[in-house]
Amino acid sequence: MANTFGHLFRITTWGESHGGGVGVVVDGCPPRLPLTEADIQPDLDRRRPGQSPIVSQRKESDTIQILSGTFEGKTLGTPISLWVKNADARSEAYTEMATKFRPSHADYTYQAKYGIRAWPGGGRTSARETVARVAAGAIAKKILRQRHGIEVLAYVKQVQRILANVDPEKVKAKDIESNLVRCPDALAAARMLQLIEKMRHAGDSVGGIVEGVARGVPPGWGEPVFDRLEADLAKAMLSLPASRGFDVGSGFGGILLTGRQHNDPFRAKAGKVYTTSNRSGGIQGGISNGQTIYFRVAFKPVATVLHEQDTVDVDFKHTTLKARGRHDPCVLPRAVPIVEAMTALVLVDHALRHRAQCG
Amino acid sequence: MANTFGHLFRITTWGESHGGGVGVVVDGCPPRLPLTEADIQPDLDRRRPGQSPIVSQRKESDTIQILSGTFEGKTLGTPISLWVKNADARSEAYTEMATKFRPSHADYTYQAKYGIRAWPGGGRTSARETVARVAAGAIAKKILRQRHGIEVLAYVKQVQRILANVDPEKVKAKDIESNLVRCPDALAAARMLQLIEKMRHAGDSVGGIVEGVARGVPPGWGEPVFDRLEADLAKAMLSLPASRGFDVGSGFGGILLTGRQHNDPFRAKAGKVYTTSNRSGGIQGGISNGQTIYFRVAFKPVATVLHEQDTVDVDFKHTTLKARGRHDPCVLPRAVPIVEAMTALVLVDHALRHRAQCG
Amino acid sequence: MANTFGHLFRITTWGESHGGGVGVVVDGCPPRLPLTEADIQPDLDRRRPGQSPIVSQRKESDTIQILSGTFEGKTLGTPISLWVKNADARSEAYTEMATKFRPSHADYTYQAKYGIRAWPGGGRTSARETVARVAAGAIAKKILRQRHGIEVLAYVKQVQRILANVDPEKVKAKDIESNLVRCPDALAAARMLQLIEKMRHAGDSVGGIVEGVARGVPPGWGEPVFDRLEADLAKAMLSLPASRGFDVGSGFGGILLTGRQHNDPFRAKAGKVYTTSNRSGGIQGGISNGQTIYFRVAFKPVATVLHEQDTVDVDFKHTTLKARGRHDPCVLPRAVPIVEAMTALVLVDHALRHRAQCG
Amino acid sequence: MANTFGHLFRITTWGESHGGGVGVVVDGCPPRLPLTEADIQPDLDRRRPGQSPIVSQRKESDTIQILSGTFEGKTLGTPISLWVKNADARSEAYTEMATKFRPSHADYTYQAKYGIRAWPGGGRTSARETVARVAAGAIAKKILRQRHGIEVLAYVKQVQRILANVDPEKVKAKDIESNLVRCPDALAAARMLQLIEKMRHAGDSVGGIVEGVARGVPPGWGEPVFDRLEADLAKAMLSLPASRGFDVGSGFGGILLTGRQHNDPFRAKAGKVYTTSNRSGGIQGGISNGQTIYFRVAFKPVATVLHEQDTVDVDFKHTTLKARGRHDPCVLPRAVPIVEAMTALVLVDHALRHRAQCG
Repeated sequence: MANTFGHLFRITTWGESHGGGVGVVVDGCPPRLPLTEADIQPDLDRRRPGQSPIVSQRKESDTIQILSGTFEGKTLGTPISLWVKNADARSEAYTEMATKFRPSHADYTYQAKYGIRAWPGGGRTSARETVARVAAGAIAKKILRQRHGIEVLAYVKQVQRILANVDPEKVKAKDIESNLVRCPDALAAARMLQLIEKMRHAGDSVGGIVEGVARGVPPGWGEPVFDRLEADLAKAMLSLPASRGFDVGSGFGGILLTGRQHNDPFRAKAGKVYTTSNRSGGIQGGISNGQTIYFRVAFKPVATVLHEQDTVDVDFKHTTLKARGRHDPCVLPRAVPIVEAMTALVLVDHALRHRAQCG
Repeated sequence: MANTFGHLFRITTWGESHGGGVGVVVDGCPPRLPLTEADIQPDLDRRRPGQSPIVSQRKESDTIQILSGTFEGKTLGTPISLWVKNADARSEAYTEMATKFRPSHADYTYQAKYGIRAWPGGGRTSARETVARVAAGAIAKKILRQRHGIEVLAYVKQVQRILANVDPEKVKAKDIESNLVRCPDALAAARMLQLIEKMRHAGDSVGGIVEGVARGVPPGWGEPVFDRLEADLAKAMLSLPASRGFDVGSGFGGILLTGRQHNDPFRAKAGKVYTTSNRSGGIQGGISNGQTIYFRVAFKPVATVLHEQDTVDVDFKHTTLKARGRHDPCVLPRAVPIVEAMTALVLVDHALRHRAQCG
Repeated sequence: MANTFGHLFRITTWGESHGGGVGVVVDGCPPRLPLTEADIQPDLDRRRPGQSPIVSQRKESDTIQILSGTFEGKTLGTPISLWVKNADARSEAYTEMATKFRPSHADYTYQAKYGIRAWPGGGRTSARETVARVAAGAIAKKILRQRHGIEVLAYVKQVQRILANVDPEKVKAKDIESNLVRCPDALAAARMLQLIEKMRHAGDSVGGIVEGVARGVPPGWGEPVFDRLEADLAKAMLSLPASRGFDVGSGFGGILLTGRQHNDPFRAKAGKVYTTSNRSGGIQGGISNGQTIYFRVAFKPVATVLHEQDTVDVDFKHTTLKARGRHDPCVLPRAVPIVEAMTALVLVDHALRHRAQCG
Repeated sequence: MANTFGHLFRITTWGESHGGGVGVVVDGCPPRLPLTEADIQPDLDRRRPGQSPIVSQRKESDTIQILSGTFEGKTLGTPISLWVKNADARSEAYTEMATKFRPSHADYTYQAKYGIRAWPGGGRTSARETVARVAAGAIAKKILRQRHGIEVLAYVKQVQRILANVDPEKVKAKDIESNLVRCPDALAAARMLQLIEKMRHAGDSVGGIVEGVARGVPPGWGEPVFDRLEADLAKAMLSLPASRGFDVGSGFGGILLTGRQHNDPFRAKAGKVYTTSNRSGGIQGGISNGQTIYFRVAFKPVATVLHEQDTVDVDFKHTTLKARGRHDPCVLPRAVPIVEAMTALVLVDHALRHRAQCG
């Protein structure tokens, strides 16, 4: 099941960096949802390298095709097959990757696991794999928006030490998209941009935090005890390339408070229960409580840097390796649509699960 | 699937705080493993409330029974059913919980989801549910130890602001068990103990961080792309009551480094590849690389405090609630065996999955 | 997953013939369903050996206990743990089974698979395992009856060459239960009874066919393409001990007709579509069409006969084996509640799946 | 999971009769297996309509493309995406299917389930969907052959009343392929051919039985209690379009014997256990016993006949419908490679499962 995610709204992804492309089969989508390529392409464009000066300059067209599962612009309830063709593989001018393991990449571990690996472009370890997630996530986002009135957003919260000031309750999509960094705090965004540019020139990279938000989730979604909403979100986020951490609500910061300080008091208004603070991050006991869900994902600085580094080759001999050409000094702006996609996939799956048992 | 965890080494747990007990069915255990209750009971005793002055004083006997799956002291390959009877339910002297939602507990969300809830002791939302996890985890730990030479450990790394100094490569089980806090840094442990005692007297609670470690995992375990080792660990940890965050290797701290600083150089010795630093936390691209796996889990301060708090009742009327009697000012020492159990369950599952495809 | 059945209404069974008992965890049951042991016990009594002169004379009390998942007589939505204790294991006077493989039993294959087996009573290969299925099935039947108005029935259709004349559209539960054979055709039942008695005295056994019926299933249940309703029913039935065949609707007999003869014409009345014949057995393209679902399950004559038979021992030496004492000349009457249980489990699972995606 | 089959060797299929094509993602394939399109195409050609005068005359090129999962002619261990493009959709000259439900097809049930359906060519209900199964099955067959020395075969055993005489132990692939009917009994094949031709001219159709065989399966594959080998085979076969029944070993015929007659005596030779008869069909207690596995699948006469038939339209009004043009008077010859494919998929999945737990 390694390449399948979700229980009722299930996606199965495939594809390597080079070869026939990357794709995803979406199984379990409700029927009669209006759906065309135009619903999906914009998020792919947000994920695409080369979209702005600060992200990887590789040009990928990333044009989505719907191969099955729709009829006359509506979903059939049958599997939706989505495909993004790879650009014609340029003859790999530089084949050092065939014989050397890139530090802190997955070259060595794939070789250790499978005894074989597709070294051009990193094969399946390439972040290109996330194309499939974003495509499937666009469908999930549409279901959440249309059928449940739920808005899913993500934005860059921190780049290295530069922290943005953002209110998860009020942040708007257009503010996120208003700058290249996808950070809705314009001042922080400017400083982040400067740092990223500096890293580009230094051939180095920086990491940071993407914050994800879901507003409008009704109380009752999430399944105790293993498939808690935050557990499934954590898995979704830690399955992303370069992600190293996840926390929800007060998160790691919450441990500085005592229980008295930390608890969220309940109140009710117009027949609806709410909490007067939201350190729970909208989830209690693994189940949504109707408040805004928010969480953070830590991304390490990406491993590709334009400097000579110690490593070993496939014969386990010591050597050095220096990446060349383009590199992506900060993956965070492109990670934003990916975090949104995974969030939406988790939520739609839980919406269906909740309806199945308790609907 | 909400109450099932794992793909090939699968556990299905059941049970409420009150009633017939809690239990777990372990399916997929390899045959011919020596197994008796004596392999499981010690970890249950480490999890048990009332084991020391600093944890919850409820007396639970928590005696494990193996109801199926073994014959003449060995596993059969058939499902292992484990059962811990609940102590006779004392008539619930105080039934305020029946009509009021405890703040930052799951009372409200269960009610919202199911339209019914077992209020005595919190029903299935009770941390008593983790008995089942610890029992199943003890089997997983034994398999890892006996068949793979893998050691799984956890310890208290931080209580509120008090941070322990522990080397994941060298920490020993006996040092962890040498004090009530289960923190192998004796100095930090003493300060933690003081803080916890203070909280007990104040009727308040504190949270912190448990660090988990797995030493001896061979390269190649973990399944790209969704079932990465760190993704499954993240899910396992975020499925624990009161946990709010997870990070692996350099984690949230790693975002302060640049890519050049962060990468782990490869080296080889005696035909084995290793890294000269371990910011990856033993996992690269979702797959173990043979180095020590280590990660952190953030636990919020537990919600039960002996103070009057604002809340609403089941009719959504404003009211207050004050917990009485015993409380658990710090859940971390008891969380240690639970983190170990979940870690072992994830690893055994991946050991079997790796063998299935690549063995 | 070998011991788990179902996707959304999931059962996980455990237990051997001897030892702590047999049990099942039912996960995914809708909340607020009235449920007590009294809903389950009657079907267990129908399955029990020793209930009549013509079935196995072993006395098993088979008393069901609900250990979790209900509160004040209603389901909680949490896992329901059901347990039937084994009678005290009589010291196994005769231990020939420890060293010899019974012909056409699973002794040899379990040994070949696991390298170990619980020989007393056949361990997990014992038909006692079906206790768990019947218990879970009783819950499924109740959901179908109460929430969907669906009636699930089964009856003995054929014993060896004696074929009953039964109309699946009209057969009633009380007619099925009116005789020991559970065959609603009284004349055929009398002849079957005679044959079974003859087999008992001869120390031999006979097989036959149980027919299963579900009336009132609405159109639209069943999932193309792999989880068709008939595919899941086939799996359910072929997972029963001693079952060797399954067919639905016109089944194996339907191959004698041509397409023109076989097709079921559609008609409509009062805004409802129906078919004027029902050779499809209520399922078209894997999905229910609103007509009565009916199918047959072939059970071989049970392997335990009171005669000396050629076999080998655990050292692969030629030997003979003669079963002693009680035997069950015809398993069919006791298979009736088991077929009903599995049918109900399949249908409830599909009810939930249908609601999840299309509800 | 409706469009996913298998646990460890998992296939997920997609595609409608018209549109972008049909395809399958194969997840869990062992790495380093030599694999190119040439391994798959021959079985697709055997399944293809128009391959001979007696099967459907629609011309489909059915050219397989491997889009991912291989590198330099070997499997990577990552998902293998297989795609067969649909021929350019001829403008549907005749659109009666848009408004009328074909009797004994799935038009009505899909409409009832989803409230929408792709009527051109039947959409996902089309037998064209089996292209994906055959493609995936070709990989499974190769694994079984190369890694386990297992041969999987199927052949036409019966067409209406014409029964072939075939020995499952000895039948050869070349004899099966020696005639258009794929029946290795030449005499029976000639009579079957005559009957099928007669049906073609009459615009009618006939059904029959395909027998499947697996030789060389070692003892120990299959998982009690629900995922028995015969249960998974039954599900696989009943998931095929037009299939209505399944039996294994002595099957429905076995009920005419008594237990004494039916049991298979064990014997041993050269350290290997075998049975002197094989009424068990190579499976005992759900687990292979090392003997040849054989089973039968009943296929009803296909529903498309060139005669006017009573039906209703989408407004539930009475009407008639007459299919035009080409039709397939007997689906059995083309079902042969599909039965082989599904058999191989079940066996490979169980091979991996067995290795995971007991390897």
